Amino acid sequence: MNDSHYPWFILVPDRPELSEIFQLPPEDQDQLLRESSHLSRQLADCYQADKMNLAALGNIVPQLHLHHIVRFINDPAWPAPVWGKLPARPYTPAAINELRVRLRPYLTDVVPFVWA
Amino acid sequence: MNDSHYPWFILVPDRPELSEIFQLPPEDQDQLLRESSHLSRQLADCYQADKMNLAALGNIVPQLHLHHIVRFINDPAWPAPVWGKLPARPYTPAAINELRVRLRPYLTDVVPFVWA
Repeated sequence: MNDSHYPWFILVPDRPELSEIFQLPPEDQDQLLRESSHLSRQLADCYQADKMNLAALGNIVPQLHLHHIVRFINDPAWPAPVWGKLPARPYTPAAINELRVRLRPYLTDVVPFVWA
Repeated sequence: MNDSHYPWFILVPDRPELSEIFQLPPEDQDQLLRESSHLSRQLADCYQADKMNLAALGNIVPQLHLHHIVRFINDPAWPAPVWGKLPARPYTPAAINELRVRLRPYLTDVVPFVWA
């Protein structure tokens, strides 16, 4: 998510016609949770998170997607969920580059990751 | 959840020492998602939901738990997430009983359900 208040990543299964996890066949649910848990673990490790927040909401964008948000006890929304707390603060190009360099070693093995 | 604004159910894995889904062994993650998806599907069906909201946050109560919230486009928080929008409006005893009667046929087969 282009909001530098929190490291915030979204997994989007390649199933544009679905809006709920339970609509996936069981084996695809397993794969989704494997990838989600891998992403969460790596983010928690990379950022030394105080807590990971995971959510499938979709009230505004119905296509199935999973939020993974790294939370810190001193982040600007803590302990509330992040939605609706602060206007997004976009990354600068330098900050995006820094984020890529920092995360690359953590996210190259399982989750397909777009570096472009 | 004792908030009659939304049908809201929480799954709590019997692992009081854990706070993140990724800390569960893979087979327990699979079981959790099976039970979660079953609960979501049944709730969506029972209430004719416009959307299900699923979340593992835990910023205030760190013990691992999953929120399942039935959302409607005319509910009082839509389209925002429900947290922090309205003070909880507890169920009356009659409304709790009605909810039990309504849900019982949907939730007797897989998810253990406390009716007491």
